[in-house]
Amino acid sequence: MPGNITGRLLRLASFGESHGAAIGGVLDGFPAGIAIDLAFIQNELDKRKPGTASFSSARQENDQIEVLSGVFEGISLGTPIAFIVRNQDTRPEDYHEISKAFRPSHADYTYSMKYGIRDYRGGGRSSARETLVRVAAGAFAKLFLSSKNIYIQAYTSSIGPVEINQNRSEIRPEQAGLNALRCPDPDAVVKMNAYLDEIRELGDSAGGTVSCVISGVPAGLGEPVYDKTEALLAQAMLSINACMGFEFGTGFKAATLRGSENNDQWDWPEDAQENFHLNTKTNNSGGIQGGITNGQPIRFRVAFKPVATIQQDQPSYTTEGENIVLPAKGRHDVCIVPRAVAVVEAMAALVIADLFLQHKALDK
Amino acid sequence: MPGNITGRLLRLASFGESHGAAIGGVLDGFPAGIAIDLAFIQNELDKRKPGTASFSSARQENDQIEVLSGVFEGISLGTPIAFIVRNQDTRPEDYHEISKAFRPSHADYTYSMKYGIRDYRGGGRSSARETLVRVAAGAFAKLFLSSKNIYIQAYTSSIGPVEINQNRSEIRPEQAGLNALRCPDPDAVVKMNAYLDEIRELGDSAGGTVSCVISGVPAGLGEPVYDKTEALLAQAMLSINACMGFEFGTGFKAATLRGSENNDQWDWPEDAQENFHLNTKTNNSGGIQGGITNGQPIRFRVAFKPVATIQQDQPSYTTEGENIVLPAKGRHDVCIVPRAVAVVEAMAALVIADLFLQHKALDK
Amino acid sequence: MPGNITGRLLRLASFGESHGAAIGGVLDGFPAGIAIDLAFIQNELDKRKPGTASFSSARQENDQIEVLSGVFEGISLGTPIAFIVRNQDTRPEDYHEISKAFRPSHADYTYSMKYGIRDYRGGGRSSARETLVRVAAGAFAKLFLSSKNIYIQAYTSSIGPVEINQNRSEIRPEQAGLNALRCPDPDAVVKMNAYLDEIRELGDSAGGTVSCVISGVPAGLGEPVYDKTEALLAQAMLSINACMGFEFGTGFKAATLRGSENNDQWDWPEDAQENFHLNTKTNNSGGIQGGITNGQPIRFRVAFKPVATIQQDQPSYTTEGENIVLPAKGRHDVCIVPRAVAVVEAMAALVIADLFLQHKALDK
Amino acid sequence: MPGNITGRLLRLASFGESHGAAIGGVLDGFPAGIAIDLAFIQNELDKRKPGTASFSSARQENDQIEVLSGVFEGISLGTPIAFIVRNQDTRPEDYHEISKAFRPSHADYTYSMKYGIRDYRGGGRSSARETLVRVAAGAFAKLFLSSKNIYIQAYTSSIGPVEINQNRSEIRPEQAGLNALRCPDPDAVVKMNAYLDEIRELGDSAGGTVSCVISGVPAGLGEPVYDKTEALLAQAMLSINACMGFEFGTGFKAATLRGSENNDQWDWPEDAQENFHLNTKTNNSGGIQGGITNGQPIRFRVAFKPVATIQQDQPSYTTEGENIVLPAKGRHDVCIVPRAVAVVEAMAALVIADLFLQHKALDK
Repeated sequence: MPGNITGRLLRLASFGESHGAAIGGVLDGFPAGIAIDLAFIQNELDKRKPGTASFSSARQENDQIEVLSGVFEGISLGTPIAFIVRNQDTRPEDYHEISKAFRPSHADYTYSMKYGIRDYRGGGRSSARETLVRVAAGAFAKLFLSSKNIYIQAYTSSIGPVEINQNRSEIRPEQAGLNALRCPDPDAVVKMNAYLDEIRELGDSAGGTVSCVISGVPAGLGEPVYDKTEALLAQAMLSINACMGFEFGTGFKAATLRGSENNDQWDWPEDAQENFHLNTKTNNSGGIQGGITNGQPIRFRVAFKPVATIQQDQPSYTTEGENIVLPAKGRHDVCIVPRAVAVVEAMAALVIADLFLQHKALDK
Repeated sequence: MPGNITGRLLRLASFGESHGAAIGGVLDGFPAGIAIDLAFIQNELDKRKPGTASFSSARQENDQIEVLSGVFEGISLGTPIAFIVRNQDTRPEDYHEISKAFRPSHADYTYSMKYGIRDYRGGGRSSARETLVRVAAGAFAKLFLSSKNIYIQAYTSSIGPVEINQNRSEIRPEQAGLNALRCPDPDAVVKMNAYLDEIRELGDSAGGTVSCVISGVPAGLGEPVYDKTEALLAQAMLSINACMGFEFGTGFKAATLRGSENNDQWDWPEDAQENFHLNTKTNNSGGIQGGITNGQPIRFRVAFKPVATIQQDQPSYTTEGENIVLPAKGRHDVCIVPRAVAVVEAMAALVIADLFLQHKALDK
Repeated sequence: MPGNITGRLLRLASFGESHGAAIGGVLDGFPAGIAIDLAFIQNELDKRKPGTASFSSARQENDQIEVLSGVFEGISLGTPIAFIVRNQDTRPEDYHEISKAFRPSHADYTYSMKYGIRDYRGGGRSSARETLVRVAAGAFAKLFLSSKNIYIQAYTSSIGPVEINQNRSEIRPEQAGLNALRCPDPDAVVKMNAYLDEIRELGDSAGGTVSCVISGVPAGLGEPVYDKTEALLAQAMLSINACMGFEFGTGFKAATLRGSENNDQWDWPEDAQENFHLNTKTNNSGGIQGGITNGQPIRFRVAFKPVATIQQDQPSYTTEGENIVLPAKGRHDVCIVPRAVAVVEAMAALVIADLFLQHKALDK
Repeated sequence: MPGNITGRLLRLASFGESHGAAIGGVLDGFPAGIAIDLAFIQNELDKRKPGTASFSSARQENDQIEVLSGVFEGISLGTPIAFIVRNQDTRPEDYHEISKAFRPSHADYTYSMKYGIRDYRGGGRSSARETLVRVAAGAFAKLFLSSKNIYIQAYTSSIGPVEINQNRSEIRPEQAGLNALRCPDPDAVVKMNAYLDEIRELGDSAGGTVSCVISGVPAGLGEPVYDKTEALLAQAMLSINACMGFEFGTGFKAATLRGSENNDQWDWPEDAQENFHLNTKTNNSGGIQGGITNGQPIRFRVAFKPVATIQQDQPSYTTEGENIVLPAKGRHDVCIVPRAVAVVEAMAALVIADLFLQHKALDK
């Protein structure tokens, strides 16, 4: 099952190498009858576009999406939605010297060992350019989810050692879009920018974390046992380039808490008499219990490592065993976390939309 | 896709409620010709058995596995391996009072909202008793992997606030089996036991973390993009009851590091001249780059929350909105982390065996 | 994807060798809240039981089903339904001489070539005894479908050269249960019995066809392109032991017709004004157009070859190349067609129930 | 699981409406290192092109394939192979009057009932134009199979009532390419052409059958139980537009034979002493026993109904219940059987290549 297709009822088949003719995807299982706002889709893509801030790659990616099928007179047909983005501003000559060498902490070596062949131009299929496909598909999923009043908001919660205010009540995730770092804490933004300036001058790179809140999810969504909501979210997040970890609710901190601290007590909402449902007084469970949603916001956090490409000479080996030095060059992000915000949202949207459809199949 | 079947080429179908007639599984895709040591399988099951230490549930689970198919004269046939374990020592009367109420941070409420019906006896399908199926199936996977010289070793790396020695070179994971806490650091074991005694007296519960090392995995295993090795491991781990987080390699800490700190430099092994392969000088990548293994040990860590059932009265609501108090009773673990070690190993074994077969399909 | 698991949203994992400890299945995705009548399930199993007529094997298969999970107080839980049937009256000694030889037109040789090992007792996994699992799972699917007013009726439409009345209007499929041959045409039954007596005296075997009608299926069910309703039915039927062909609607005869003869003209039902739908004046399409149901009865026909085991000496070879003669013995059916009627119904029920759930997922 | 993705290890995601911007596919799981001859791919596409003979549609489909990914310097990368074909010569105005009516025996009505919306232009997604995607993907599969010495040859075996010589030994399937009817029997070709001339003058249409031989398949391929080789072939064939039936080996005729007539006796090949394998003296099993290949050629036959669009006025209804007459017009084939030959081959290639990879995963 070569991993370029994901999802169960809503499935995305992704294709494309970084410097090939085009990248794109086929989204099968998208419900019929949804209004498709192409400007919204393009706007989502623009959010992950590099080159819009000083911490980003200078590669020009004026990525224009072309939808090839599945939409008729502005409405989804229920048939596969295919889309492509032509690759532009490719500079394969930048990569010639790595055609027989292996960059540290990239996938050059592992792809060579797996396939016996690789497209060395910009990492080929292993390039984070593939996340463009995710964002496009996720934008369609968002259109479906918003028709069900489900909304997804991710934001930068740390860059390097700089974290946002840990008092969650003072954070407005929806303000993430106000700055290029996609961080809703203005004080942190100042510090993050200073840190990134420092890192750039060192020719180094930075990691960080992205947090995400999904609101409007009804209780009862998700599947049990192996396909728990958090399990599918974890797979989706760890599949993003450079992702190193996932936690939901109290996450890793839960390991240090006591049951009496971590348990969420039930609350009886005023309107439960007419239409039975319960709330929780806290949301340490991150909106999920036993793999199934409880109606509270789903909350999770994702860790990204620093970009492997740095503006420093790095030693390596060729396939013939020659010890060489990979020079500092190329067009790369100092920190991909702000661009990853859009990718986290997109993957979350695909997972939740898929679970929504799966739930519908078995619901009364 | 109701989530009781997992895997791609090696697939496990799991069944059973905590207090039903039996639980068990069907393992399809297990290769033919592997010697099946039933004593080994039973021994793996015994590792997750409760009641063997003071922090464990007093429920007697003398779980004897019966293999119903797939093995002929001690050798796997290539046909599905089915196994069952009869449920014993069930006390459904313990659960009568929760039949119309919802325990905090359990799946009682979410299952009711999803299915409109639930087996309230011991949590029914949402019970961690299902992990027995995983351990049994994982034991078969281990037999296959050991025929390929791949070995999996997990261990308790923290309980509550007590962590093991962070100097990895002083830890011998294979010593995890020497004590009931399955912790390879004797100093930490003393502190963990003291902490658990304290928690038990408070009628409370504790969480913790489990770390895991997979050795012998050749370079080139794993699938790209959506089914990256770490993504499938993350799904597998987050599907375990009470799991709240997953990280691999430098994990969440990577978010605070610089690229120059986190990158793994290549090393040229002496025997690479004859048979090309590379090593890394460090293993911050946790054995995986671009989703595909690089031949170094796979390393990951998993967080478990404290057990939701505690020996303290907890308020709740019935379906009719009656505000009730759930009394402190029942037979439950103070901390499931030591028992979860076997489950983490089993899920890792299933994932890696599956990826091994998938790789073989496309390998030359 | 070793083929022991089938289905998409409603999935069946099957296990068991003919002479192993037990055979059984796990049915995942069965909706919650359906009343489960175990007597009905057992009665369905009895329909495929051998030994009830002179054309059947003398092997006693008093197959008693045990349901291990998924049903609580007579209602389905939405969790996996596992069931087993213990194998009884096994006589492995009957099969010793084929342990190193290959019966003509059986799977002995192909299984040996595939797996390098085989359970030679009664064909092991390749035995038609596995169809018991299908009938049990299909019985659950029928319970679900009847709650939606969908009904499935198959019947013997030919045995050897003896065919039923081709005037469809004179056939009442629901009368199939009135005789052991499961044939609704009393005149044909007389001729079929005479033919089977003749074949039995010759120590030979007979094939035949099974026809099937599915009524009550709403228009709009089924998936397009690769998973057309007829495509999934064809896979399901061809997966039954000894099945050699499938056709629906006018089937192979359609290849000889003209478009003007084969097209189904539309009809406007009286009640279409309130609730739009159309009928067809003929049903040459067998209830399916473009892979999707049109509301007319689904009609298809399946061909079964004569049983490969016959009461005549047959030459063969051992793995060492010794030319041997397999003697005429063993307990086998002269014709499995009447028993296959239950299997055809069961597989049809699984396919339609699965498509029903899939449709629900994407329906408004 | 909306059915636009097929396959297990080798998966094809198909997209595109008949008169949309483009149609195409993504082929995931194609092995790395295979030389890709684009001229061969284009030539396969040309085989299904209409307009090359008098029985074909006059629509100009100068379909030029563009490969967007997965091939680097003429070699497959192991990454997804995406390809598109732009739709040209579309005349949506031809279809305006069916936008609110339903053509007999087309999918207009069923798609409307399923999706609540349809692209009425040329049948939209239900158009046989989608088979172009299959032929392109199948061409890639053929390149892989030929590297394993596996070859697939289909041919027209009947058109309307005209059948080819039933003496199989006098038919050379590889001569199918010598005429536009893709029929290897010159005598039958004459009669078929005469029959088609007659049908065309009547403004009617004809059906027919396609036979297929797959040679070079090693013994031991295929999966047991639900995914038998014949079951996957049957699904693949019945998924082709207008296909009404499938049979393999002796097929429907087997239902009339006796076991002693239908069984294939084993034969001991001269070279079996060194490398054990068996032949059969006849091939009534069509190369498959118990779902798994036995090393003999795989033989099957597929029935196609006459084209539903005919050059005769046909009555129908609008969604408002208006009784209208659909006039005879449009550009359509009198008989699609000769064009279906390429589609049958392509689907067979995809199935066998997929089974080849699946077998490899579990083979020693």
